[in-house]
Amino acid sequence: MRKRLRWGMVGGGHGAFIGAVHRMAARLDDRYELLAGALSGNAERAAASAADAGIAPERSYADWREMAQREGALRRAGRGGIDAVSIVTPNHLHAPVARAFLAEGIHIICDKPLTVSLAEALELQALARRSSALFVLTHTYTGYPMVRHARSLVAQGAIGELRLLQVEYSQDWWADAAALTGEGGWREDPAIAGPAGTLGDVGIHAYQLANYVSGAEPAGIAAELHTFMPGRRLDDHVQVMLRYANGARGTLWASQVATGCENALSLRLYGSRAQLRFDQEEPNVLWLTPQGGVAQRITRGRADSEAAAHATRIPAGHPEGYIEAFAQLYRDAADLIAAHEAGVAAPPGAAYLPGLEDGVSGHRFIDAVLRSHRANSAWVAV
Amino acid sequence: MRKRLRWGMVGGGHGAFIGAVHRMAARLDDRYELLAGALSGNAERAAASAADAGIAPERSYADWREMAQREGALRRAGRGGIDAVSIVTPNHLHAPVARAFLAEGIHIICDKPLTVSLAEALELQALARRSSALFVLTHTYTGYPMVRHARSLVAQGAIGELRLLQVEYSQDWWADAAALTGEGGWREDPAIAGPAGTLGDVGIHAYQLANYVSGAEPAGIAAELHTFMPGRRLDDHVQVMLRYANGARGTLWASQVATGCENALSLRLYGSRAQLRFDQEEPNVLWLTPQGGVAQRITRGRADSEAAAHATRIPAGHPEGYIEAFAQLYRDAADLIAAHEAGVAAPPGAAYLPGLEDGVSGHRFIDAVLRSHRANSAWVAV
Amino acid sequence: MRKRLRWGMVGGGHGAFIGAVHRMAARLDDRYELLAGALSGNAERAAASAADAGIAPERSYADWREMAQREGALRRAGRGGIDAVSIVTPNHLHAPVARAFLAEGIHIICDKPLTVSLAEALELQALARRSSALFVLTHTYTGYPMVRHARSLVAQGAIGELRLLQVEYSQDWWADAAALTGEGGWREDPAIAGPAGTLGDVGIHAYQLANYVSGAEPAGIAAELHTFMPGRRLDDHVQVMLRYANGARGTLWASQVATGCENALSLRLYGSRAQLRFDQEEPNVLWLTPQGGVAQRITRGRADSEAAAHATRIPAGHPEGYIEAFAQLYRDAADLIAAHEAGVAAPPGAAYLPGLEDGVSGHRFIDAVLRSHRANSAWVAV
Amino acid sequence: MRKRLRWGMVGGGHGAFIGAVHRMAARLDDRYELLAGALSGNAERAAASAADAGIAPERSYADWREMAQREGALRRAGRGGIDAVSIVTPNHLHAPVARAFLAEGIHIICDKPLTVSLAEALELQALARRSSALFVLTHTYTGYPMVRHARSLVAQGAIGELRLLQVEYSQDWWADAAALTGEGGWREDPAIAGPAGTLGDVGIHAYQLANYVSGAEPAGIAAELHTFMPGRRLDDHVQVMLRYANGARGTLWASQVATGCENALSLRLYGSRAQLRFDQEEPNVLWLTPQGGVAQRITRGRADSEAAAHATRIPAGHPEGYIEAFAQLYRDAADLIAAHEAGVAAPPGAAYLPGLEDGVSGHRFIDAVLRSHRANSAWVAV
Repeated sequence: MRKRLRWGMVGGGHGAFIGAVHRMAARLDDRYELLAGALSGNAERAAASAADAGIAPERSYADWREMAQREGALRRAGRGGIDAVSIVTPNHLHAPVARAFLAEGIHIICDKPLTVSLAEALELQALARRSSALFVLTHTYTGYPMVRHARSLVAQGAIGELRLLQVEYSQDWWADAAALTGEGGWREDPAIAGPAGTLGDVGIHAYQLANYVSGAEPAGIAAELHTFMPGRRLDDHVQVMLRYANGARGTLWASQVATGCENALSLRLYGSRAQLRFDQEEPNVLWLTPQGGVAQRITRGRADSEAAAHATRIPAGHPEGYIEAFAQLYRDAADLIAAHEAGVAAPPGAAYLPGLEDGVSGHRFIDAVLRSHRANSAWVAV
Repeated sequence: MRKRLRWGMVGGGHGAFIGAVHRMAARLDDRYELLAGALSGNAERAAASAADAGIAPERSYADWREMAQREGALRRAGRGGIDAVSIVTPNHLHAPVARAFLAEGIHIICDKPLTVSLAEALELQALARRSSALFVLTHTYTGYPMVRHARSLVAQGAIGELRLLQVEYSQDWWADAAALTGEGGWREDPAIAGPAGTLGDVGIHAYQLANYVSGAEPAGIAAELHTFMPGRRLDDHVQVMLRYANGARGTLWASQVATGCENALSLRLYGSRAQLRFDQEEPNVLWLTPQGGVAQRITRGRADSEAAAHATRIPAGHPEGYIEAFAQLYRDAADLIAAHEAGVAAPPGAAYLPGLEDGVSGHRFIDAVLRSHRANSAWVAV
Repeated sequence: MRKRLRWGMVGGGHGAFIGAVHRMAARLDDRYELLAGALSGNAERAAASAADAGIAPERSYADWREMAQREGALRRAGRGGIDAVSIVTPNHLHAPVARAFLAEGIHIICDKPLTVSLAEALELQALARRSSALFVLTHTYTGYPMVRHARSLVAQGAIGELRLLQVEYSQDWWADAAALTGEGGWREDPAIAGPAGTLGDVGIHAYQLANYVSGAEPAGIAAELHTFMPGRRLDDHVQVMLRYANGARGTLWASQVATGCENALSLRLYGSRAQLRFDQEEPNVLWLTPQGGVAQRITRGRADSEAAAHATRIPAGHPEGYIEAFAQLYRDAADLIAAHEAGVAAPPGAAYLPGLEDGVSGHRFIDAVLRSHRANSAWVAV
Repeated sequence: MRKRLRWGMVGGGHGAFIGAVHRMAARLDDRYELLAGALSGNAERAAASAADAGIAPERSYADWREMAQREGALRRAGRGGIDAVSIVTPNHLHAPVARAFLAEGIHIICDKPLTVSLAEALELQALARRSSALFVLTHTYTGYPMVRHARSLVAQGAIGELRLLQVEYSQDWWADAAALTGEGGWREDPAIAGPAGTLGDVGIHAYQLANYVSGAEPAGIAAELHTFMPGRRLDDHVQVMLRYANGARGTLWASQVATGCENALSLRLYGSRAQLRFDQEEPNVLWLTPQGGVAQRITRGRADSEAAAHATRIPAGHPEGYIEAFAQLYRDAADLIAAHEAGVAAPPGAAYLPGLEDGVSGHRFIDAVLRSHRANSAWVAV
């Protein structure tokens, strides 16, 4: 009954961390069969990487344009062309690659950030609206059961009206001298990464998570970017004050030079009824504390929502992690694509999948932060 | 270069939790191709489960004896018979199934406990010694990077001489009235589970983990079993005092009626130089505290051993969990089997794989606990 | 209205840690006026210590027998003799000093352990029953608000019927070579400390806490003592299995050579309805987890019992510690003594004060452990 | 040798929480004798409160001006007038009362905030410079051993150059409808509390702590105040971005409507070498994590600085709390005053005592926040 999707990948060749993660994530629930790829712009590397990934030589492409055309043709001809493609290239290629596959009606699973500019993001959104293909954006942290449980609690009114929001994403690996050489080096090249450094790399994860869980987007922000490491061309730190339409206030900060931090993404919401707290490094736990009351440490195995149950594979007390969260996006995408292809209603998990709206929203935020920063942190609309 | 093993499974049909976990674990690193199975003793269920698992109908067997013979024949004939089989049946079948596949020279990956009696375990060990096949026992928790890091620290002398050892494994799911009906019901049937309830289900995990990390096995024990739930035929709680040959002392307790516990396996070692602590529910962390000194919270991403690095897939701060630990056993088993087949030296990971010795040791422990319990907790040799 | 008690102290001269703590504890709530003391058996040291403590020279005694007689005479004569005396000497003097002051009708606040033998404890209990004086035993940890809240929760049925109890008290300071020289040296001298080392020093704290909170005393135990440090004359480690009359089971262990531990006293109760957990090193917190449910982290400021409120001085989120717990015993003792002297009903706090029964119970436990240990850990009645 | 100071108090009558805390703190180490007081502006209440506090009727004053004059006269005449006075009134009286006692050369221990305006703070500072009296400002959290250890670590270069600073102080009690009625009601009356609500009540604690530990003061800030509770006349939330002269960045936020928070003051410093973290609700612990390294959980008992040892009363593992921190300020003040009176060098603890500079600095911050807020969060110099 349940079948595996025919699947391809652009980017993710040897040495590319995130491509390997996408493949592990896709394998976990066995819903994808990797059949085609343009794993590298370097032909030799593309071929070697494809061989290792079990892709047949005739479906390993050195050029993603060729891949899009040929797979599209195979698909239209009912000859086994891929149903979906994952885009795991550096940022500047996300949009052109996505455009090429959208044009062929091939579903997209794209790494964040969506593109390198708001204009390009909007254009891609418009294009996708006219396409039959679906678009999933892998904001990984939305795959965690406890993030979904949090979202579900907020939607049900568990925290009351949002009053304060504090979100942060701190890492320290860019503080190492050697951090941005090698594979990660493109992250500080504006021509490849776009105009945002840490802001685009992790800041938008924080922003998306805050919006995803709270169900609210800030109306205005005042922001400052900063570059600590000498010689770096993009920001490695960003701090932002947030104002919401309902009067709520908040702070977002993200840093990749926050000494001693590994991947410290945390979100705290304070509503009129309760506080909610999530820490990415302890993803099987969610804290809910009512006003003046006793803190509840809700574990994945004891969360009582459909949202959490849907994203859970193993029993209480058996920790799940980052790969499982990523796999959840792949599983939900597979369900959504299958339903779409079958012409039936979207499955419940679809409501939890991030997509183009999240991508466009992220670029609106990046754009606003850049504007505020240039105006010496003046408040600007998002 | 790296190739996927031809792989089969006995047990793990529809509704069997642990079979699904084995398959996820095997898929994660893409080293196994599931080609054959006797997924259930019920022919219809076996077929349906096989279809869902992507096994071709002609290699779905209703009988594991037939599977062993036929896959063995295919293998010997160079016609693609399976290289390895995973045994995920209820306990009483582990030994007969293992014997059948060992006889065919097919490598075994077997769920714990090894068998249902010490005699049977010893017999299996003897048989395996005469076979060309390898035998891996899936004591899952040995796949955690931080458990391996702990073992490596102890082996290097980081804690000095062992003085005290405290290990416990507490769950609460058997305290629910409905706990042992349905799939798990066989766990309290001595004819299927063997003479040990909680002792055999989780107690031996605790025992194996303690030995695995400490590098020591107790010389003597004094133990008591208890059954709290009315009508239950096997123990649901066990407490044990431990004596080691070097004078060290310790306690092991395991309970499946420990209210409010999910899967609380924890190990603490106190040596002459330092204390070491691991909690399964926080598996990315290990605590090391020197005598009179400052506690170090070592995270997976910042552990500096080959042992931890070898068992790690993703960067610091990106949590890994139970499935990854399980996958590690599969990955190490694949490496070991591949090396064995190629006639080359065992890879480094092989030193971290639990096998028949762990199984026999576990049954020695079960046997000793039963003896001590019957003797009103008298000290007995292990 | 509320008046300060006239108060004296035996022991607690220069260099004696616990005497200073008793004085801080007594001062905190300003219910005691230190007027007399036999702070040391050494006359010179007694005088110097008394001067520092603000005791007038004429009421500093070199001999506690003289102090008892003279203060008793002053008291009977209505000439300001002390109402209460704190006994903070090494163990072997507790009983003789207590007897002397009981004979004078002076109320006793005595450090634990009560005496150095069960026989002496029983004799003291009999004597106290015939005396008009009250007897408080400073099992400090019963002064913590969250310990009292725990006791109150259990008494109200919050955990249901007790099933499992795990209590431990681990320290590492006796593992230092120099640990038991100097002031603490008497702790390993059987003539002064009695026949129990760690068992009597911290083991009985663990035992008392377990009974105090659970409301239950074990019916039988199987125990083992051990001495790790070469040349030590008393145990520095004890492990005990517990059986309760209702079928509950448990473990107690205490060690003063548990490397890396500071003062790790923790208690866990698992009942038919919920689990309860207290860690002395985080005394403002209590964990309550229902069967199969979500853990509640109850803080001192948000505990809703009279018991907790009564033992709390400052608002939520402002941590209280060990001195405040100790002070609580002093405050409750002052209330109790005042009520007793006034011939009115005992105040509510009196129900939370440990006394002779706790002391006798502790010695029954020590006695049972020694008996079991000598019988190679046989089960013995307590 | 060590003698008790003659001590008085202004404010702190019945129902005033902080006055009782000051008295407990002063008693703990027995360095103060409470001899005089103007505990309330209401004569009857002043007398009753004084009686309860053990102050002789003739030294209980209904008017603090009279108290200053009369105690000053007694002191000059060598007739036992007080050496020091604690000011624990609502904010608007701090300055006038301080002026009156400074004029008499009586040492001041004053609650924060120093005054209700920067101008008044500066004037008081000028006055104090011309006085022989000392001035201590009770920023309580500076009395914690681990805060002092943190300061000492930073001063020794343990974190390298400061890069990021995150400080927050969140409570939820102002979110209760009844929060600011009764005793605390003056906190939202600008005529009594001054122009800053939460900013002045807890925001300046956060600010002082950040400066105290980091050794740095921000050069510029951009801030926003907000009032969530309807009808409240002062801010109940403040958020601030910080810029330091060396290029460091940071965020300060304080809220008294942060649902689910008790007294959550936390400070994080990220330097070029290490991260340092302190949470007020776990005051016996300090976290130090080197760049890319393993987190150290430093406990009070295992901190190796003079600074921590000096502020510690009891052994490792025996928690100290808020009252002990407060007591530390009193103990250090007593040592400082005694040395000052004796004309000898200030004792080492004096370097850890907050005083007028901290008060003036706090008002500079309040002033800057108000200016920035009025300018729609523009960056302003501090």
